[in-house]
Amino acid sequence: MNAPDKLQQLLTLTREPFPQSRKVYAPGVQPGVQVPMREIVLTNGETVTVYDTSGPYTDPAADINIRRGLAPVRSEWVAARGDTEAYEGRARVALDDGGKHGEVADARIEALRAEAAGLQRQPLRAKAGANVTQMHYARKGIVTPEMEYIAIRENGKREWMKEYLGDAEREARLKGNGMGARIPDVITPEFVRDEVARGRAVIPANINHPEVEPMIIGRNFLVKINANIGNSAVTSSIEEEVEKLVWSIRWGGDTVMDLSTGKNIHTTRDWIVRNSPVPIGTVPIYQALEKVGGVAEDLTWEIFRDTLIEQAEQGIDYFTIHAGVRLPFIHLTTKRRTGIVSRGGSILAKWCITHHKENFLYTHFDEICEIMKAYDVTFSLGDGLRPGSGADANDEAQFAELKTLGELTQIAWKHDVQTMIEGPGHVPMHMIQANMDEQIKHCHEAPFYTLGPLTIDIAPGYDHIASAIGAAMIGWMGTAMLCYVTPKEHLGLPDRDDVKQGIIAYKIAAHAADVAKGHPGQRARDDAMSKARFEFRWRDQFALGLDPQTAEAYHDETLPKDSSKEAHFCSMCGPKFCSMKITQDVRDYAAAKGLSEEQALADGMARKSEEFKAVGGEFYVPVDSLKNKA
Amino acid sequence: MNAPDKLQQLLTLTREPFPQSRKVYAPGVQPGVQVPMREIVLTNGETVTVYDTSGPYTDPAADINIRRGLAPVRSEWVAARGDTEAYEGRARVALDDGGKHGEVADARIEALRAEAAGLQRQPLRAKAGANVTQMHYARKGIVTPEMEYIAIRENGKREWMKEYLGDAEREARLKGNGMGARIPDVITPEFVRDEVARGRAVIPANINHPEVEPMIIGRNFLVKINANIGNSAVTSSIEEEVEKLVWSIRWGGDTVMDLSTGKNIHTTRDWIVRNSPVPIGTVPIYQALEKVGGVAEDLTWEIFRDTLIEQAEQGIDYFTIHAGVRLPFIHLTTKRRTGIVSRGGSILAKWCITHHKENFLYTHFDEICEIMKAYDVTFSLGDGLRPGSGADANDEAQFAELKTLGELTQIAWKHDVQTMIEGPGHVPMHMIQANMDEQIKHCHEAPFYTLGPLTIDIAPGYDHIASAIGAAMIGWMGTAMLCYVTPKEHLGLPDRDDVKQGIIAYKIAAHAADVAKGHPGQRARDDAMSKARFEFRWRDQFALGLDPQTAEAYHDETLPKDSSKEAHFCSMCGPKFCSMKITQDVRDYAAAKGLSEEQALADGMARKSEEFKAVGGEFYVPVDSLKNKA
Repeated sequence: MNAPDKLQQLLTLTREPFPQSRKVYAPGVQPGVQVPMREIVLTNGETVTVYDTSGPYTDPAADINIRRGLAPVRSEWVAARGDTEAYEGRARVALDDGGKHGEVADARIEALRAEAAGLQRQPLRAKAGANVTQMHYARKGIVTPEMEYIAIRENGKREWMKEYLGDAEREARLKGNGMGARIPDVITPEFVRDEVARGRAVIPANINHPEVEPMIIGRNFLVKINANIGNSAVTSSIEEEVEKLVWSIRWGGDTVMDLSTGKNIHTTRDWIVRNSPVPIGTVPIYQALEKVGGVAEDLTWEIFRDTLIEQAEQGIDYFTIHAGVRLPFIHLTTKRRTGIVSRGGSILAKWCITHHKENFLYTHFDEICEIMKAYDVTFSLGDGLRPGSGADANDEAQFAELKTLGELTQIAWKHDVQTMIEGPGHVPMHMIQANMDEQIKHCHEAPFYTLGPLTIDIAPGYDHIASAIGAAMIGWMGTAMLCYVTPKEHLGLPDRDDVKQGIIAYKIAAHAADVAKGHPGQRARDDAMSKARFEFRWRDQFALGLDPQTAEAYHDETLPKDSSKEAHFCSMCGPKFCSMKITQDVRDYAAAKGLSEEQALADGMARKSEEFKAVGGEFYVPVDSLKNKA
Repeated sequence: MNAPDKLQQLLTLTREPFPQSRKVYAPGVQPGVQVPMREIVLTNGETVTVYDTSGPYTDPAADINIRRGLAPVRSEWVAARGDTEAYEGRARVALDDGGKHGEVADARIEALRAEAAGLQRQPLRAKAGANVTQMHYARKGIVTPEMEYIAIRENGKREWMKEYLGDAEREARLKGNGMGARIPDVITPEFVRDEVARGRAVIPANINHPEVEPMIIGRNFLVKINANIGNSAVTSSIEEEVEKLVWSIRWGGDTVMDLSTGKNIHTTRDWIVRNSPVPIGTVPIYQALEKVGGVAEDLTWEIFRDTLIEQAEQGIDYFTIHAGVRLPFIHLTTKRRTGIVSRGGSILAKWCITHHKENFLYTHFDEICEIMKAYDVTFSLGDGLRPGSGADANDEAQFAELKTLGELTQIAWKHDVQTMIEGPGHVPMHMIQANMDEQIKHCHEAPFYTLGPLTIDIAPGYDHIASAIGAAMIGWMGTAMLCYVTPKEHLGLPDRDDVKQGIIAYKIAAHAADVAKGHPGQRARDDAMSKARFEFRWRDQFALGLDPQTAEAYHDETLPKDSSKEAHFCSMCGPKFCSMKITQDVRDYAAAKGLSEEQALADGMARKSEEFKAVGGEFYVPVDSLKNKA
């Protein structure tokens, strides 16, 4: 079997639709706006609609061919704006894939490049003098199709969900605490535009990535999560990376960063971008460093600039740029427990020290902005001096860089370039709020994009949990996107299951944050789950969960029979003690008597309790399939 | 192989000492006080001392015989107080193990009971008029050996750890936020006494459980975690339950609740208590219900009272008593999404409604106190009306019960009976603080003991994570003990690995809380880990982690060779990009030149950077064992 066929086979498994789920598309007003959602159809006839990051892969009707890439849903919108031009593009050189000048790539990569011929597109760029960023349009008052798409996507079926939540007492009691966020009852396209114009939200959507299903990152929207993938000479291949992408978005990755290093990264990126419905981010310095043979001090602005253009032409939606690692800050890290732990940060620190010069990303920042706005690449201003341990949290180096990132944000905004700010890292719980406060203060409400943070350092093998705690908290406080951490953090490269574990932990953190912030309708899925629990609709419980297969498998370990899925009890208490069943019995009894339970109690007559006793024998349903415990 | 031999074999595996660890005992002033700790010996000669819940099982020198039980470390202390008497005790009846009157138990259980003959002890009780609770002694000004033991245990090697943390700038920056806790620099035996006397902490230590290694639960001490075990007719056996106990404390369970229902629970309990160095809690209503054939309305005060005495004589350290499920509150649950989810709560609700009478635990509360103080059993006042979904969080039913628990606390304290308060359950993040505030307000600072709380409802299969978020937060806010949740929550009965997953998640939550609260010395283990990371001491990183084997296994998946354990890089970045290595190189360079890095930068001379470049070639150590990425 050749490599792409193996990939196709893997994808068949990864594409399996979720149980009881169907893909639906909500149309917008503007042409071509068709917003995908997942509808979970419950056995009681209800449906719950959930945000869907999985793209066409979970649509059984979609014709997926990874050699051709996904359909370019945004192409017509980009074309209609009339401010772009197709051009020849930068010539590909062997160096792009890690080869030396004149070197012939190995046969396998050549074959993959040939396979990927169908993935090549002629690049677009802004016409001379034009600015094609969503921020630029927003500031001109234009509501783009992307913005309308996002409004529909963020709302989901909000009205229905609000109704589902019902009950005024409950609504008042559970009212969220936005911690400073201003979340409207209904997200309108105009609200999206306004948030983007202010810089409080970004829409990472390179004009050369027309396959992207638009999404937004901002404090007043749903909290997003990012998954990192990336090849490794030892353990992974291009095919696996594409499959990991599809796998990541299946479980809820809102964006994916391709952190590949070493050989073949250009070709890998072609495959990834063309097959990705979510924005792709990269750290261009990694590739630039490859081009100079891994010698940091040999990096130059010219090589870096060329790499930015190379990747912008391919369609990368956001770039991590470590422009805040300034020469005068580096010495602040020498007393740290763990120095500089950001790979990009350390590369630049080394460059600065070796040459005793200011960071060339800082000195050339305006020129970088010119590139960003020609393709609408979003800045993710990297925190190269983030703490690598609780001991280094919130120190002078970290906050000095953060202030610089705030200054750079204002420069980017002068160019109408979309910008978000990366954050730590390792921060004990009681020091998390200060991170959010400082970020808002210095970065003018540009979206915050944090890694974790990890609340403790002693949980190798479980850092997805140690960091999900910090992620949920900082998400509630206002972080717009959470970069996941896998169980392999600090230990090794994540495999497929690690990626899933990391994503699920971060979906939990993000959803916990959304619920706490009080996003309208976000609690509906939880409520539907609770109702299904109370009514012993086991299949609905699985379907409503973040990972239906695992939930069902765990249930079946104790009660494997199909009949158990209908049983009005579960293995935890068995048929006799089920507290939910007792509550239900109490209600049923009251209903049968035409009394509310309150009345039933209030009347205080012994007769009532006698009647209750008389029906009591029916409270318990002996089930032969289970050994009775008593 | 007979059952106990199989158990013995399992225990051999479970007893394996942790890598690089040795058991040490810190002596007290009072006779027989020998406090166990685990010393992790690092490869650089440092040691880190950690709190050790694992009991004699991880001491290679200990002679463990599960047919005989553990050594009764507390017996002499109890005897020396001269206020107890041995007595015949309640006669065992077939009903205690789920048999009917006159029924012969099955052969296997008879065999296990015979095996357990060595486990039988003649029970002790308070002499007439005496009160043997730690609270009673505390209020009389007596510092018991248990209190001294706890002071030593809570401190660990605090002075050394403080020194380890070093650096005044770091200490000031990382200073904890106790959120109202008052944690002294050094825990003295007198401080322990005072906290117990005030009711702000409890020492669960039945006089009939002399095997217990004393521990404390209170807001001003380290946050503790509880693991639940319990037999099930379908999937587990007595042997497995004992092994689960040992397994639970190996990973850090501070107390264990035996939630067994059905047959053989008396015999199971004998095995568990006699082999447990940690306090054991139960929910006596479960056994009482067995005795009436599972028919809640047939429960009587007499049967319940007899069960309390039965279990108190066996040595149970704390009882969950659902005395707050009052008749007038039950109707408050009828509008809930998930009604009553506590098993004990629903049993009592059913009893109340059927008889239309007040809860007999409430009406007989004084009599229960009399039993508790005759054995020093601690109250864990159950939250029978806790919310079973986010939708029901913080509602009237929940808080009505909480207030009642506060009233009952004051009654218990009149009897000098130690008391803690159970709490939810399911609570969205933004509603957690209110739980802590209400508990402190109404329950007079009696220790709070919460289950989770779960922050969202849609994560079946991952509820250990969804709840670890809430647990870490409420632990920081002041909860004294966190009841774990396993991945099987809401789905099935936890197996051995689920128990471990739940405990590790909760150790993370508890440690994150301790770090945030600023417990002196608690960050030392984190700092030692960070230092080991920076210095590439891989074996030390594994040894310092909560789960050394898993960390090592994950590391070895990418870099299996032994030489990699010494390598100054890891699989995440490979040998070329290691940011930690670059930082180290920067420091080494500066040191070699006799300059601080700051000076090296400040002098600004090009010569310096030339010199730096000259040694630059040595920054990278090519390693043949890894395929080079570039």
